[in-house]
Amino acid sequence: MSYNTFGHMFRVTTFGESHGAAIGCVVDGCPPRIPLSAADIQRDLDRRRPGQSRFTTQRQEPDAVKILSGLFVDEASGQEVTTGTPIALVIENVDQRPKDYSAIKDLYRPGHAGYTYDVKYGLHDYRGGGRASARETAARVAAGAIARKIVSGMVVRGALVQMGEILIDRKRWDWEEVSRNPFFCPDAEAAMRFEEYLEGVRKKGSSVGAVIEVVAEHVPPGLGAPVYGKLDADLASALMGINAVKGVEIGAGFGAARLTGEENADEMRMGKDRKPVFLSNQAGGILGGISTGQPIVARFAVKPTSSILTPRRTVDRFGRETEVSTKGRHDPCVGIRAVPIGEAMVACVVADHYLRHRGQAGEPVAWPFPPRAK
Amino acid sequence: MSYNTFGHMFRVTTFGESHGAAIGCVVDGCPPRIPLSAADIQRDLDRRRPGQSRFTTQRQEPDAVKILSGLFVDEASGQEVTTGTPIALVIENVDQRPKDYSAIKDLYRPGHAGYTYDVKYGLHDYRGGGRASARETAARVAAGAIARKIVSGMVVRGALVQMGEILIDRKRWDWEEVSRNPFFCPDAEAAMRFEEYLEGVRKKGSSVGAVIEVVAEHVPPGLGAPVYGKLDADLASALMGINAVKGVEIGAGFGAARLTGEENADEMRMGKDRKPVFLSNQAGGILGGISTGQPIVARFAVKPTSSILTPRRTVDRFGRETEVSTKGRHDPCVGIRAVPIGEAMVACVVADHYLRHRGQAGEPVAWPFPPRAK
Amino acid sequence: MSYNTFGHMFRVTTFGESHGAAIGCVVDGCPPRIPLSAADIQRDLDRRRPGQSRFTTQRQEPDAVKILSGLFVDEASGQEVTTGTPIALVIENVDQRPKDYSAIKDLYRPGHAGYTYDVKYGLHDYRGGGRASARETAARVAAGAIARKIVSGMVVRGALVQMGEILIDRKRWDWEEVSRNPFFCPDAEAAMRFEEYLEGVRKKGSSVGAVIEVVAEHVPPGLGAPVYGKLDADLASALMGINAVKGVEIGAGFGAARLTGEENADEMRMGKDRKPVFLSNQAGGILGGISTGQPIVARFAVKPTSSILTPRRTVDRFGRETEVSTKGRHDPCVGIRAVPIGEAMVACVVADHYLRHRGQAGEPVAWPFPPRAK
Amino acid sequence: MSYNTFGHMFRVTTFGESHGAAIGCVVDGCPPRIPLSAADIQRDLDRRRPGQSRFTTQRQEPDAVKILSGLFVDEASGQEVTTGTPIALVIENVDQRPKDYSAIKDLYRPGHAGYTYDVKYGLHDYRGGGRASARETAARVAAGAIARKIVSGMVVRGALVQMGEILIDRKRWDWEEVSRNPFFCPDAEAAMRFEEYLEGVRKKGSSVGAVIEVVAEHVPPGLGAPVYGKLDADLASALMGINAVKGVEIGAGFGAARLTGEENADEMRMGKDRKPVFLSNQAGGILGGISTGQPIVARFAVKPTSSILTPRRTVDRFGRETEVSTKGRHDPCVGIRAVPIGEAMVACVVADHYLRHRGQAGEPVAWPFPPRAK
Repeated sequence: MSYNTFGHMFRVTTFGESHGAAIGCVVDGCPPRIPLSAADIQRDLDRRRPGQSRFTTQRQEPDAVKILSGLFVDEASGQEVTTGTPIALVIENVDQRPKDYSAIKDLYRPGHAGYTYDVKYGLHDYRGGGRASARETAARVAAGAIARKIVSGMVVRGALVQMGEILIDRKRWDWEEVSRNPFFCPDAEAAMRFEEYLEGVRKKGSSVGAVIEVVAEHVPPGLGAPVYGKLDADLASALMGINAVKGVEIGAGFGAARLTGEENADEMRMGKDRKPVFLSNQAGGILGGISTGQPIVARFAVKPTSSILTPRRTVDRFGRETEVSTKGRHDPCVGIRAVPIGEAMVACVVADHYLRHRGQAGEPVAWPFPPRAK
Repeated sequence: MSYNTFGHMFRVTTFGESHGAAIGCVVDGCPPRIPLSAADIQRDLDRRRPGQSRFTTQRQEPDAVKILSGLFVDEASGQEVTTGTPIALVIENVDQRPKDYSAIKDLYRPGHAGYTYDVKYGLHDYRGGGRASARETAARVAAGAIARKIVSGMVVRGALVQMGEILIDRKRWDWEEVSRNPFFCPDAEAAMRFEEYLEGVRKKGSSVGAVIEVVAEHVPPGLGAPVYGKLDADLASALMGINAVKGVEIGAGFGAARLTGEENADEMRMGKDRKPVFLSNQAGGILGGISTGQPIVARFAVKPTSSILTPRRTVDRFGRETEVSTKGRHDPCVGIRAVPIGEAMVACVVADHYLRHRGQAGEPVAWPFPPRAK
Repeated sequence: MSYNTFGHMFRVTTFGESHGAAIGCVVDGCPPRIPLSAADIQRDLDRRRPGQSRFTTQRQEPDAVKILSGLFVDEASGQEVTTGTPIALVIENVDQRPKDYSAIKDLYRPGHAGYTYDVKYGLHDYRGGGRASARETAARVAAGAIARKIVSGMVVRGALVQMGEILIDRKRWDWEEVSRNPFFCPDAEAAMRFEEYLEGVRKKGSSVGAVIEVVAEHVPPGLGAPVYGKLDADLASALMGINAVKGVEIGAGFGAARLTGEENADEMRMGKDRKPVFLSNQAGGILGGISTGQPIVARFAVKPTSSILTPRRTVDRFGRETEVSTKGRHDPCVGIRAVPIGEAMVACVVADHYLRHRGQAGEPVAWPFPPRAK
Repeated sequence: MSYNTFGHMFRVTTFGESHGAAIGCVVDGCPPRIPLSAADIQRDLDRRRPGQSRFTTQRQEPDAVKILSGLFVDEASGQEVTTGTPIALVIENVDQRPKDYSAIKDLYRPGHAGYTYDVKYGLHDYRGGGRASARETAARVAAGAIARKIVSGMVVRGALVQMGEILIDRKRWDWEEVSRNPFFCPDAEAAMRFEEYLEGVRKKGSSVGAVIEVVAEHVPPGLGAPVYGKLDADLASALMGINAVKGVEIGAGFGAARLTGEENADEMRMGKDRKPVFLSNQAGGILGGISTGQPIVARFAVKPTSSILTPRRTVDRFGRETEVSTKGRHDPCVGIRAVPIGEAMVACVVADHYLRHRGQAGEPVAWPFPPRAK
């Protein structure tokens, strides 16, 4: 059962509400003897942190992470390492302004989860979205920082590839560019267009959607548990579960519907070291739910936040018709901050599958085969 | 851990290979006292069965299901009903032709799972795709037939909405039409275009992708387990896990990336019986991972099968470069038969969440609220 | 997968080491709208707390619990209630004395987990047993306090029924007595004998084992998930998983091996309100893995702690033979403090099964039957 | 959630009722490339099979197992091996006599699960106990035969050590003896006493309880997942979940309650190959929930079956008081056939933990340590 836990061998349980005392998570199943410090986690948290440009919410949260358990000094290196026991992380909420929410506490804001939480549970913490707030994703990013260390050599990077109607030009893709603009955009020219466009959206008090692409390189082949723990199925679940996400695709994705079998086939040749290579990657690095060794490519669509200045018709908890508009601190494009979150989720899923594979079949073995001895 | 099991309270474990003795499943966690017969299941299986038109593989499988356990005669009604114990279903494989596969047993067919199974496990059953065959999905359809009976009033229907570059016209959508053409197409005109188009694809020995839409109506509000068992995340996993699926979206889906907050907001008014109604359904029936009571709308993209007549470059198990083309029985558009499979997966996910919700919070309660007494 | 999580619908994930910053847990899956405060939890924690008599370790830990998430004010009552989201609890470690452990950090103390943790993980936090410390059980007791509130009317109580060779006299069983002596002993006379006996054990720097009995009354009939989630199997797991436990039994337990079928049969008659009653309870309230409605009776045996003054032969991490004896703060009979822990584990297991049952089959229905309508 | 599935990485899902069409199981998560044939499984099934002496039920079931999936010919060896996909096993029911049960279909037999199944599900398959029948355990034994092959070198053996009041003499323990008498008794003299005693019990139409001991040798150290997947906790669950079991203990078990710390400590010395050895095994091979490398020793108590000739008072489904006695085919000591079942459950649990350990921490590493490089 997964309510607030994801993963099977690498398991992440998160807790906390937007305006409660703290948010955090317990990471369980981490292999022992991995060097880890709060700084390793803080680095990723800082990429997700709000208030870093005028294009994200102005809430000021230091997002300082504290590690409560699961580390111990390794005598050989003098470094703190994981012990194989649960790693509990806590991030205190600092810049809460629950009063901001008293005006809308009985209103259902279109596109928000307040209505469904109320239907499900009979009440909900309306302060900043409570449990449904994007603030919860800080815990995911923290867990992802640990996951990145599990699969040796793996690199997981994300980028914003579409904002509203504007797409990047893939020919200009430059990973270095991603950290140089406030949009995680790999195309410097598109970043400038995003800036101008989003400035207009922000000034109107409106919002806009986006598409994010995450690429995981150096993922060992053989990861994935067919047929109901497929790597792509688990990625789909992990990415669709991020706040505001409405679509997920792998490799050619929805574009694959338009292709013929000839166009879609990733042909194979022998490469150097007698390893097979693929001549294209329509598959996005996954065949039959199992990693091929090619880069894993996933994209997800983020809807525009419903917190906008233009009044929208709605009802309240008492069944009265009314209107609502949002004047508080909000993101004109929540998709931006979804980039490090998407990376974290992909890293967690791959790490989980790495451990699962190792359990069933031992360390991943690369070509050449046929069959190894047991 | 889920290798070959999905669901949490309504759990489906499938087994079997394309050319082994049989395929089947064990459905566990089904509520007791639900009337069920093999005929109920056979009806759905017959919709997925191959060989029913020239547009699907000509393999002839009766797909006759046998129920081995989990039913007992209810004395009051004289009918067989579920007992709450596992329901084991077996479907024998009849029209196996394993010899068809000897020529390609050492070749990696681009786009097939043979390569990744070999990397993962060190061997694989190459006959008809073995475990990775679409034949496995018969077990899902069987399970879905049971799931449909669990949520009272729920109706789950699917349709093919795109084949290659051709889209249906949503204004002509007619559910009645779906059973009248071999494509599960809800638009009679599009069906005719599909037919002509696919006939050309078939004759060339080529294949083409498709998009399927599944709609679940009369799903109680309140289903879904935030934040890591969200209804949309579980649907994404269930649909992405179907063979050949490369993308999943809910409601506005990838289109949401292009929308502004104003366009995307599903406004609310009070309807009859003092129940809130939504004026649109961009959300696809799910907010914050929880069902709203509106129809749940999910779409998924199916790639063209890689089994085509045109030779493709590849390698074999021994690291030799070669070419491969497929002359056997295959589907020019595997997306067609994915329609009942998609329905089944959606039904299973909703049934599971219905039971999960009832466990945590009791029977779903509809508006009006605020809070019910415990 | 369960490393540091137990339960299925009512799920408890614990974290923390004996001498780390804090211990705690995340309780997930709790039904919404249950009144809950830190005081409710503190009450149970105080019963388990060390340093309350000379018969338990003199470590001084206030065990003050903080609730970080999962509660919100119910407007109707003005009280804090559960929201259905994860309840995170933290208990800071205050009276750590890690220096006490430097002398034994490389020694394997017979009966302690240091050796096996080292074999498993390649290192371990040796301070006070680290993760293997009984301190971890405070988190269980906290979770148990929440579990008790889920099953309406349920009462779970425990008692020490044997210490070393001394057994209580069941004819003198008085639940009121349990809180009047430092042994949780229901027999006042036995308590006096325990005191004298344990004082001798303590002065010698020795230790002794014990047997605890936990009784859960007013558990609805019908709870338990045959055949691999049987109520008794889950109780066995929960109780055997308490530190130092070496045996678990239900009802007649090992005594059942000595009985004939005639003696062991719990005969039935009709009681008042036309409800069936059992004339004995050899079954301990469970038949076929499902609760009967009778009191659930479980017993477990706790070994003597291996932390004793008498030197024992052992080896160290470097493979050198040596001796070890323990001079620090320890419990001469760890079984005493196991009483509230056993209660907590039983409460958690029953609460979990209550929710699981409700999910599959709806609210438990008492006699009369046969069959209810669905 | 586990209703009819146990294990985490090595997962067993069973199905079937005593007098239905068939029983069986799906074994999932098995490592690939393990040689396996139906004969391997049949060997263990034949040890559990009824009707082999006058001391077990006279039902005649060949218990012939069929493997439906999960195997494929390994080209190198020409042998069938596991493929890493689900292994489905089916055993047809042959000697059903459902008519035998019509007389008692409305009666609740004391000690049987009919009453609790009815309370839980509102109906039950009363023929031979339905799902609650010991017949279900054939599936466990089949799964255990596979599990035995996973942990290289592991030997799991069981023996009956007590029948009613009669205990074996441990000094005469001889594993060879176990297969020479119909009681799985390791003490030839005790076996003769058992025979005489049980003959008397059988003739009276009575029944008697028993204690079984299972020993697993050559289990790698380091297996077990503290703190909620402890090896002993999982063994307790697995053994308590066998039909009619009322108690489980590890190592010294309930006897540990009577011991002092000095007596209970398993002292350590350095043995040959610079490996640590234990001078005793009160721990039963498990410390802190993790295997030490010593033999794992578990015992469980089986109650006398309630199917006896002497009439017992009971009620029926309609709330009428009555009496019941059993004249059909039954076991005077169900504990006998529990021996191979106990072995199977222990083998499954250890195999599961072997895979789980390998997933988190890689192949088990034996002494010497301290710390290996990652």
